[in-house]
Amino acid sequence: MSPSTPFLSVDLERMQANIARTADAATARGVALRPHAKTHKCIEIGRMQLAAGAVGLTVATVGEAEVFAAAGLDDLFIAYPLWVDAGRAARLSHLAAVGANISIGLDSVEGAERVARAGLAGRVAVRVEVDAGHHRSGCDPSAAADVALAAARAGFDVEGVFAFPGHAYAPGERERAAADEAAALALAVAAMRAAGVAPRVVSGGSTPSFDAALVLDSPVTELRPGVGVLGDAQQWELGSVRETDIALTCHATVVSHAGGRLVLDAGSKVLGADRAPWATGHGRLLDHPDARIVLLSEHHAVVDMAGGALRPLGSVVRVVPNHVCTAVNLVDELAVHHRGTDAEPAAVWRVAARGRNS
Amino acid sequence: MSPSTPFLSVDLERMQANIARTADAATARGVALRPHAKTHKCIEIGRMQLAAGAVGLTVATVGEAEVFAAAGLDDLFIAYPLWVDAGRAARLSHLAAVGANISIGLDSVEGAERVARAGLAGRVAVRVEVDAGHHRSGCDPSAAADVALAAARAGFDVEGVFAFPGHAYAPGERERAAADEAAALALAVAAMRAAGVAPRVVSGGSTPSFDAALVLDSPVTELRPGVGVLGDAQQWELGSVRETDIALTCHATVVSHAGGRLVLDAGSKVLGADRAPWATGHGRLLDHPDARIVLLSEHHAVVDMAGGALRPLGSVVRVVPNHVCTAVNLVDELAVHHRGTDAEPAAVWRVAARGRNS
Repeated sequence: MSPSTPFLSVDLERMQANIARTADAATARGVALRPHAKTHKCIEIGRMQLAAGAVGLTVATVGEAEVFAAAGLDDLFIAYPLWVDAGRAARLSHLAAVGANISIGLDSVEGAERVARAGLAGRVAVRVEVDAGHHRSGCDPSAAADVALAAARAGFDVEGVFAFPGHAYAPGERERAAADEAAALALAVAAMRAAGVAPRVVSGGSTPSFDAALVLDSPVTELRPGVGVLGDAQQWELGSVRETDIALTCHATVVSHAGGRLVLDAGSKVLGADRAPWATGHGRLLDHPDARIVLLSEHHAVVDMAGGALRPLGSVVRVVPNHVCTAVNLVDELAVHHRGTDAEPAAVWRVAARGRNS
Repeated sequence: MSPSTPFLSVDLERMQANIARTADAATARGVALRPHAKTHKCIEIGRMQLAAGAVGLTVATVGEAEVFAAAGLDDLFIAYPLWVDAGRAARLSHLAAVGANISIGLDSVEGAERVARAGLAGRVAVRVEVDAGHHRSGCDPSAAADVALAAARAGFDVEGVFAFPGHAYAPGERERAAADEAAALALAVAAMRAAGVAPRVVSGGSTPSFDAALVLDSPVTELRPGVGVLGDAQQWELGSVRETDIALTCHATVVSHAGGRLVLDAGSKVLGADRAPWATGHGRLLDHPDARIVLLSEHHAVVDMAGGALRPLGSVVRVVPNHVCTAVNLVDELAVHHRGTDAEPAAVWRVAARGRNS
């Protein structure tokens, strides 16, 4: 018996196809793949990505690194400009002591000095984050050499440079963001080479920029897509995953026909509340592509069927969350189903790194 | 030592004052208080609300009811139009068997027939949900008698009627929404009386409409505010909680000054991604009221300080999430601090009903 709705379900065959397609594309281009595990937070999925050829995993926090390393998936890049307090320093030292191969991000000279004072030189490697146009974290590409030199002088292995072209998460921006990333990384590589700290790894993101990054003239040696392994409504609307590649849905029950619309028992506490300004709704229905979630609260999704017939009370529909990374982080387990079946799950995977924000 | 950032912290004295003020206001008006526990999901906070005079708690799901009932907080209203599948029917029967006093919501004749077929008559009481203008779930007030009669004929105790004036969550709409609620409930009460199923309990929501509901000529006998016990940036902006009443913040570290702004290590996976169209940002800083979170991703909050000085790298700031209910649901524990101190938490409370969506 399936669990009571709402619950998240993985379509196993679709996910396996997504993993294989991404790995094949990276191999064909000759770049390494280090998928971002914040999307799925599951040991089982990380293992499949590594088995398909990924060189390691990307994570966002020390806590996520601990979860994956404990399961033996211990070649990990924490793609974040960490500010290392005493607690995090001890935890990173412990990871190194048990043999994990950890790299961390830095985007300032002060951050480099901080990790040096924390005694982490020789224990973790460093990658410098540069801003490629998303304007979130990351130093200016021209400053990458300063950060790299500060870390190198403190005894760190400065293995590389990385960027995240988050401005690819908008309609029509994927190619431009990928080009911005390539240009920013090229500038940083040149500056670092000139300073005598040439990077061995030149790492780019993301799912929406992935295809474009593969065909550019770029110094990229590694890519870190996350969302594409499962897909979501945002990527569907951006055109970076196809409807037929979406491998995660929330199974939800129609509880009301109030106002002539569908009211589902899946709300923001299982779908997440992400809604980009360009999104057409709070989420979509996989089997009713024209329908939109027009009102979302914690335990209600109100669906406008766009003229389509209402599904009966008590029926179960498959909702595609806007942003799969935040949806997965809301549940303890994923039900794993074989394609097209609503029967008993083939497996249940624990969201092992759920809530590991620090 | 405090936990590593990001973590959620409760200001104990502020929260206690919020509980007392809300209880006193309800007592002065002569209405019962049944706070919505989905906001905090904590046994400790529920106990304080009951100790202050609440007649019971409101919850949103059977899973939340199970958690509170297991701790002895077992006078519970599930304010939701449940569609009772076999699993939920068995769980509700079990709650009744162990002595919990459970009411559930219904908004359709079909829903009433469903719970009757599930064998729940005599085990749970029923309240009819009416739409008061939010247009989410709830039947038209004129249809309340039909739903009530269907439930009563099936042997249920139809103890009341309820509404949620969610359209109060918008600037300038609190009074109008409270008036809409009073009018909808009055219509429903009249229809139910005429049909011989007069409600004993006439229940209204919400935090933003609470003050207005207390001064209206209204049939309300019970109110169900949720958010106000802790407060959040949405209620701060709506004017329904004061800045000085906000009792929950996310402690976050400044990890970068990229682009001349603050980058914090708290993102949507601890703050939640809620952002109403009228909200001025993705969250606010309690100690810098003019600052706004202008970019939020899973582990980054980028803060525009609105001309104020940047806080140093490594400093800890207190972030007010836009919507406290979804923030609390992202963590396993709340750190409890006495007012104005950042020292070791006075207590750690488990978010016992986190993730109980079904």
